[in-house]
Amino acid sequence: MSDCVFCAIVTGSAPARIVYSDEHVVAFLDIRPVRPGHTQVIPREHIPDLAGVSSDVGARLFDGARTVGAALRASSIAADGVNVMINDGRAAFQTVFHTHVHVVPRHTGDRITLAKGLVVRRDPEADATADAIREVIAPT
Amino acid sequence: MSDCVFCAIVTGSAPARIVYSDEHVVAFLDIRPVRPGHTQVIPREHIPDLAGVSSDVGARLFDGARTVGAALRASSIAADGVNVMINDGRAAFQTVFHTHVHVVPRHTGDRITLAKGLVVRRDPEADATADAIREVIAPT
Ligand SMILES: [Zn+2]
Ligand SMILES: [Zn+2]
Repeated sequence: MSDCVFCAIVTGSAPARIVYSDEHVVAFLDIRPVRPGHTQVIPREHIPDLAGVSSDVGARLFDGARTVGAALRASSIAADGVNVMINDGRAAFQTVFHTHVHVVPRHTGDRITLAKGLVVRRDPEADATADAIREVIAPT
Repeated sequence: MSDCVFCAIVTGSAPARIVYSDEHVVAFLDIRPVRPGHTQVIPREHIPDLAGVSSDVGARLFDGARTVGAALRASSIAADGVNVMINDGRAAFQTVFHTHVHVVPRHTGDRITLAKGLVVRRDPEADATADAIREVIAPT
């Protein structure tokens, strides 16, 4: 994918502050961090969306996210916690269509509110909702 | 962990609307969904935090999240996208200390704003930030 900025980071043709890489994944600072230390973990191969991520690649992304999360805590960034997030699809705020895992350092009292504007309440149709999902779910 | 509500769901001693389960993970509707269809994917074993999730368990959680995400799109919930999220640590809004993966269905124009209140801007100390992470990062 010659026009994919994340592929360009993988090949080294676009600059990035890479904090970790291995055979499978590359992790680099987000250029527009929601907090300093906000890191993206991406597969080396161009996979546009979550549906295309194999179990193997998923395991490597998970390992990468855990590694980065531990480093954000252990480093001078001294995160008290981390949010690990995949935004899959434009409706979920995915902007680069090379799947990526956000790892965001959090500090107690940092006043970030995730999922603001949501009304968190019981789903009155929860039984029907569950049935709808079960109906189509496929074993992995 | 006899006082863990998610362990109780795994053993069947607490009620839940389970939408998927296999040898490794159980997925059930969040009782306080941010959107109808909001699902939690959890490992069968009691693992408090991300640091304790092995590569194998991570792969299974990833598979479970991908499976649920695909079902949220394919079902009558008709999600246009999904957010997949792990909140690791109290500072990151983890409330149940049996690690879990949120899968939230999203629809175009649903007016959810993730990470509201964040000022997204370039980190003026980005080079130092990257160095701080690299210094402590350990290979997976
Ligand atoms: Zn790419
Ligand atoms: Zn538990």
